[in-house]
Amino acid sequence: MKLVRYGPLGQEKPGMIDADGKLRDLSGHVADIAGDVLSQKGLAALKAIDPASLPVVEGSPRFGSPVGGVSKILCIGLNYSDHAAETGAEPPTEPIIFTKQINALCGPNDDVEMPRGSDALDWEVELAVIIGSRAKYVSESDAMDYVAGFAVMNDMSERSFQIKRQGQWTKGKSHDTFGPLGPWLVTKDEMSDPHDLDMWLDVNGERRQTGNTNTLIFNVPHVVSYVSQFMTLMPGDVITTGTPPGVGMGMKPPQYLKVGDVMTLGIAGLGEQKQTVIAARD
Amino acid sequence: MKLVRYGPLGQEKPGMIDADGKLRDLSGHVADIAGDVLSQKGLAALKAIDPASLPVVEGSPRFGSPVGGVSKILCIGLNYSDHAAETGAEPPTEPIIFTKQINALCGPNDDVEMPRGSDALDWEVELAVIIGSRAKYVSESDAMDYVAGFAVMNDMSERSFQIKRQGQWTKGKSHDTFGPLGPWLVTKDEMSDPHDLDMWLDVNGERRQTGNTNTLIFNVPHVVSYVSQFMTLMPGDVITTGTPPGVGMGMKPPQYLKVGDVMTLGIAGLGEQKQTVIAARD
Repeated sequence: MKLVRYGPLGQEKPGMIDADGKLRDLSGHVADIAGDVLSQKGLAALKAIDPASLPVVEGSPRFGSPVGGVSKILCIGLNYSDHAAETGAEPPTEPIIFTKQINALCGPNDDVEMPRGSDALDWEVELAVIIGSRAKYVSESDAMDYVAGFAVMNDMSERSFQIKRQGQWTKGKSHDTFGPLGPWLVTKDEMSDPHDLDMWLDVNGERRQTGNTNTLIFNVPHVVSYVSQFMTLMPGDVITTGTPPGVGMGMKPPQYLKVGDVMTLGIAGLGEQKQTVIAARD
Repeated sequence: MKLVRYGPLGQEKPGMIDADGKLRDLSGHVADIAGDVLSQKGLAALKAIDPASLPVVEGSPRFGSPVGGVSKILCIGLNYSDHAAETGAEPPTEPIIFTKQINALCGPNDDVEMPRGSDALDWEVELAVIIGSRAKYVSESDAMDYVAGFAVMNDMSERSFQIKRQGQWTKGKSHDTFGPLGPWLVTKDEMSDPHDLDMWLDVNGERRQTGNTNTLIFNVPHVVSYVSQFMTLMPGDVITTGTPPGVGMGMKPPQYLKVGDVMTLGIAGLGEQKQTVIAARD
C-alpha cells in the first residue's frame, strides 16, 4: 500500500493511493497513519479494505508527512561507502546515530527554510525506514517485523551549524522544514528489495546525487536492530539511513543552496519530492 | 505552583501540591500538564483556582514526569565551569547541544535501567527548564516569557556508549529511564532566582555531586534563546542545562553504578528524586 496524509498543515487526513494513482480517503477507517495503525495487525486491517470502497479525493491537496505521531527521527551518518569516500572520512565500523528534532518534519513538497545566518544549506536524498511497533533489543533476523515501510526523506543540513558551532550535529539538522518526508509511506510488502533502489536528487534541474541503496554499509535490518540496543523505537519513529554521493559539501568547491533554488528528488518505488528554498519564517 | 502528574505509568493524572504539601487532583480542570496548559495564559488559569477546592488525593501514588506531551529533550553539555574543569575540557565558547530521546523520560522515583553491555553507567543532577510556548528566534531578553518553569532531571548516561561507540552522544543518553524528571514542575513565578540554587546527588548515601546553578556558564535565558536559533521549541519541551562536578566519569579512578545502587538527588526548591538501578527490561 501507498499510505499518505493529505490536507493543510496540522489538519492532515489519512489516505491511500490506489492502483490507478487516485487518492482515496481513509478517514472513515482510521484517525491517522500513526500508532497502532502502523503495526502488522493495523496494516493488515487496512489491506483488507477494498480501495474501490473508499471515497476518491478530488483536486490536488497538499501532502503532509505520510506518518503522524512521530516521537523521534534518527539519522545514520556516512552509511554509503561511496559517500564516505567522497567526504574523505573512514567508513564507520558501526552505525553513527545522529538526531533530527521532530519540529523539522514536513510534507514532501513544502517549502524548505534557509535559517537566519545560514551559509551552507545542503541536501541529502535518503531512504527512511518507518517503525511499525515498539522495538527494544530486537535481533537483526527479527528486525523487519518491526518495520511498517519506507519513504523518501530529504535530510536537510546547515553544514556550518552542524560542524563549526561546537558540539553535536543536531544543531545543523533540526531547523523547521529540514525533514521533508514522503509523499508516501510504502508498506514493506510492496518493496521487493529495499537494498536495490535507485535514488537521485537535482538542484534547479541539474543532477547532484545519483546512488543506489545497494551501496549501504549497514543495511536496514542491521540498523534497526542496532539502534534498538541503545533506545526504544516506537511506532511512527523514522530512521533515515544515510545519503549517497553528491552533497553540496562534497563538491569542489562546495556549493550550497540559496533562496529560490528548487530541489527535486526521488527513490525508485517511493515517489518524488520537490521543494523550493525560502527565507526562514518566524 | 508545584504541578505534578501522578498515577501508574501511561495513566498519569494532573495534580498540584498545595501549601501544606498535600497532593490535589487537577483532572477536573485540565486533561494533562501539557500543551496550552503550560502557556502563560494556561498557567494563570490554574493559578486562579483555589487549591482548597480541589480533591485531596489520598495515599502515596507514584509520580510520573511532571510534564506530558514532550516532543524533545535537549541537553546542554559542559555548562558548569567547575564541571568543565573536572573533565579536563576547555569551557565551551557557545552552548553545546546534545539530545536525549523522549523514550528516556520517566518519573522521579522510578527504577533506572542498566542497559545490556553497560560498563559505565553514570549520574548527573541537572536543572531542567520546561518550555511553556512555541519559541523560535526569541531574544535573550524575551526568553523567560517562553518558559513555564523548572524541574530536577537526572541526566543518566552510559559513558562507553556515549563516547566509545562512534558518533554522537545520544547513543549513551537515550536508554529507557535515562531521564527521571520531577517530582514537580515548579512554575517560574515561584523561583526567585534560578541561578542561585544548591544542588546535590548521593549514591548509596555518599555525597557525589555538590553544586550551585550560580556556576552555570550559559544561563537559562541565554540557553533558551540560543537553542531557539537552531530549532523551534514547543510547549513541554525540556532543556536540561548541564551538571556540576562530581560525576562518576570524573572520579579518580572513575566509579560507575551497578545494579542495586541507589541515587538520591535534589535541587533547592525543586524537590528530590530517588532511583534504584535495575537490570534492563525487554
